[in-house]
Amino acid sequence: MDKRNLTLLMDFYELTMGNGYFLKGLKDRVAVFDAYFRTLPDQGGFAIMAGLDQVIDYMEKLHFTPEDIAYLRQRNLFDEAFLDYLANFEFACDVWAVPEGTPVFPGEPLVTVRGPVIQAQMLETMTLLLLNHQCLIATKANRIVRAAQGRAVMEFGSRRAQGADAANYGARAAYIAGAVGSANTWTDREMGIPALGTMAHSWVQLFSSEYEAFKAYAEVYPQDCTLLIDTYDVLQSGVPNAIKVFDEVVVPAGYRPKGVRIDSGDIAYLSKRTRQMLDEAGYQDCAIVASGGLDEYLIRDLLLQGAKLDSFGVGERLITAKSDPVFGGVYKMVAVADETGALEPRIKISENVDKITTPGFKCTWRLFDRDTGKAIADVISLADETIPEDEPFTLFDPKAIWKRKEVDNFRAERLQVPIYEKGQLVYARPSVEAIRTYCQEKLDTLWEEVTRFENPHKYYVDFTYKLWQLREDMLMRHRV
Amino acid sequence: MDKRNLTLLMDFYELTMGNGYFLKGLKDRVAVFDAYFRTLPDQGGFAIMAGLDQVIDYMEKLHFTPEDIAYLRQRNLFDEAFLDYLANFEFACDVWAVPEGTPVFPGEPLVTVRGPVIQAQMLETMTLLLLNHQCLIATKANRIVRAAQGRAVMEFGSRRAQGADAANYGARAAYIAGAVGSANTWTDREMGIPALGTMAHSWVQLFSSEYEAFKAYAEVYPQDCTLLIDTYDVLQSGVPNAIKVFDEVVVPAGYRPKGVRIDSGDIAYLSKRTRQMLDEAGYQDCAIVASGGLDEYLIRDLLLQGAKLDSFGVGERLITAKSDPVFGGVYKMVAVADETGALEPRIKISENVDKITTPGFKCTWRLFDRDTGKAIADVISLADETIPEDEPFTLFDPKAIWKRKEVDNFRAERLQVPIYEKGQLVYARPSVEAIRTYCQEKLDTLWEEVTRFENPHKYYVDFTYKLWQLREDMLMRHRV
Repeated sequence: MDKRNLTLLMDFYELTMGNGYFLKGLKDRVAVFDAYFRTLPDQGGFAIMAGLDQVIDYMEKLHFTPEDIAYLRQRNLFDEAFLDYLANFEFACDVWAVPEGTPVFPGEPLVTVRGPVIQAQMLETMTLLLLNHQCLIATKANRIVRAAQGRAVMEFGSRRAQGADAANYGARAAYIAGAVGSANTWTDREMGIPALGTMAHSWVQLFSSEYEAFKAYAEVYPQDCTLLIDTYDVLQSGVPNAIKVFDEVVVPAGYRPKGVRIDSGDIAYLSKRTRQMLDEAGYQDCAIVASGGLDEYLIRDLLLQGAKLDSFGVGERLITAKSDPVFGGVYKMVAVADETGALEPRIKISENVDKITTPGFKCTWRLFDRDTGKAIADVISLADETIPEDEPFTLFDPKAIWKRKEVDNFRAERLQVPIYEKGQLVYARPSVEAIRTYCQEKLDTLWEEVTRFENPHKYYVDFTYKLWQLREDMLMRHRV
Repeated sequence: MDKRNLTLLMDFYELTMGNGYFLKGLKDRVAVFDAYFRTLPDQGGFAIMAGLDQVIDYMEKLHFTPEDIAYLRQRNLFDEAFLDYLANFEFACDVWAVPEGTPVFPGEPLVTVRGPVIQAQMLETMTLLLLNHQCLIATKANRIVRAAQGRAVMEFGSRRAQGADAANYGARAAYIAGAVGSANTWTDREMGIPALGTMAHSWVQLFSSEYEAFKAYAEVYPQDCTLLIDTYDVLQSGVPNAIKVFDEVVVPAGYRPKGVRIDSGDIAYLSKRTRQMLDEAGYQDCAIVASGGLDEYLIRDLLLQGAKLDSFGVGERLITAKSDPVFGGVYKMVAVADETGALEPRIKISENVDKITTPGFKCTWRLFDRDTGKAIADVISLADETIPEDEPFTLFDPKAIWKRKEVDNFRAERLQVPIYEKGQLVYARPSVEAIRTYCQEKLDTLWEEVTRFENPHKYYVDFTYKLWQLREDMLMRHRV
């Protein structure tokens, strides 16, 4: 259990604004914020929602210690009455979120917060940080898992992660998205994500020869013997020594060898020759594991070239999402209550059209075809709208409204579920294992065209007419 | 203070190997490991050492709780005697390291560990993780600071960081490398790294108009009034409303306005027009702050085009080192003690020549010119060698030994300092502030040619003849 007090991992402006709201009598003014992202990493077809459990953890522990208050006081910016409010902080927000493991698309609110503006504002940094990180890694890891075409992918990147949380929760996100486990022992002890691994080059180097090193390892772990065969020369010494040790130690002990690992060199070539040598020695069942500089593109190419590989250890390019390491989630105010409590929509204009926000307190629906079970489209509506399933629905692209398509025979599901009601947690947090299973189920509802790496089919994320009209009206009104 | 028990944030193979060493009677066998990196991020001329204080933190807290032991036991892989060894773990390694803030180059041991192989091996994951992360961010942040040419750079990226540690220790690394502070409040409370920030777009959106929003903010913070002017339209409404509020609220309260911030649009154009409008209104002293999608390249270009900017808030591209997000540090065994305790060098061969390790227990020297104080070259020697300052020294490139250069009139400094002696901390850990000052001093010893972004001068990292000869001999010997 993480015992850190991370409450103050917030942008300082959330506190200066909070103090300002407090002093301007706006302490209890209700506002609505949406957390969403604008573009898909790696020009992919979808992303995977992850990180919600850690967002809940943050919200559950949100409080200001006497030390926090003392620190804020010495900044000489905050009113004593505001510090008193913080010292007696009581979380009072409503929160909705898309469950972890769900495929998600740009523009869809992943988390929606409605509550006193001071509080809702404070959640910005950690909500974004946690979603941005885990959605990024889950999305990347699933690309790699898809490239491996059913072969196991192991997350091996802790040492190259951007800090300890990146290693720990990156391993979590990768597991949710289909990795079979991680080299990181911490995530196994804390979350039951299988920790995997056998030996480093240093094991081989410590002994007087590669043969002695393999022999010693096999004597300790005859039941679980995977040998790293590239410390000196894969084909000249690694494979022959491995076969010798399998013959002399593993088989006589009553076991079959588990595998050999290649961490450098041309893995396509080396794996084919290694396979041949192992097969000829009678070890057709000995797996070949590849690691070292892998990602979805290299794995795809290796397999296209007939590399004989049974599983992959993927490090830095997964744990940092190296090819596109930022998941650009934002947290934007979309509505504010007036004096009567009625919500008024808000918009943020930008010269960059993609940065204009979608106003209003909203809801996202996913339409599934009743025959195939496949997801047809997502539709964002205002929160008080529903999408009746018993009549045809006309989809239209909010950026090109002449593009229309009528759908029927669908099931409409709300993407978000309630997480907090007036500050009380109302969500049964699923286990990592349950999220992983759910993720696979939901991925199976995507058309294959959406999951392609190159130029994937663009999944529809449309607006209801009412929402579209609201946005158009507000844009016209704000035109100077 | 971070109270997490991160001991088990280690690759599982460190434990399976440890158990193997233990069972093979190699528990007390001494080995030497070097942590170093192979290539500079962004094709830059140097990197900056950072993260050591957190490495020390990890080493100080390294211990296995009863829960850790229980977890390991249920894996059914570990001998009870080994688990007992872990339960009674006593750190016994010698550790040397390059102080934080020092400019460093590929191939140089940043951290060297000598100790019982089980223990030295266990330090691999966290030593690399912490160095890889903070060296990466410090190096990137300093590039951005250099591009800003004396203007303040603020770290604004928490929300896009890869996890909480990436935000917190990324802010630390950026500060060491010359950023003036961070938006992250946690790093201010924990480490005294100035937290900065004023308002978000949501502040402007909450009020009935931009003018009302600015006025409310100025009334609360007349002494510290920086206004975000791009929520609707910078030139048509943002700047005029800001000037109006400076006139009506800030100046009458007896203060001068502090600044305006532009977060979108064409910042070169907008800043020039904004400067003109502020100057004409008598606010020549009001700063213009830019944020949004910045990095060293954009900042350099904006300034080249005459953008009127006084400081920069830099987010995702700094906190993830987006252009090159992996600092590829490795941790390699370089020597092993024989039965008598004498150290024998070890090497790891690779088909990729750059991945061949430099064998032996070593030392790195930096040669400074006595007249200019500038760093001339670094020389890696075996640990028992010294570089006499009173005679000329012949530098030669270990990859091209015909390239030679004789230097004299130099001062030779050891780059690494002792951190642990037989498991006891012997290093006085400097404050973040002291590291930041030290970093600037050391950067001033680099020739300007080394700090260029494009095609920087390659700083010499040479070997002594003895080390070069050792490596050649071992390579020949391992040739099959």
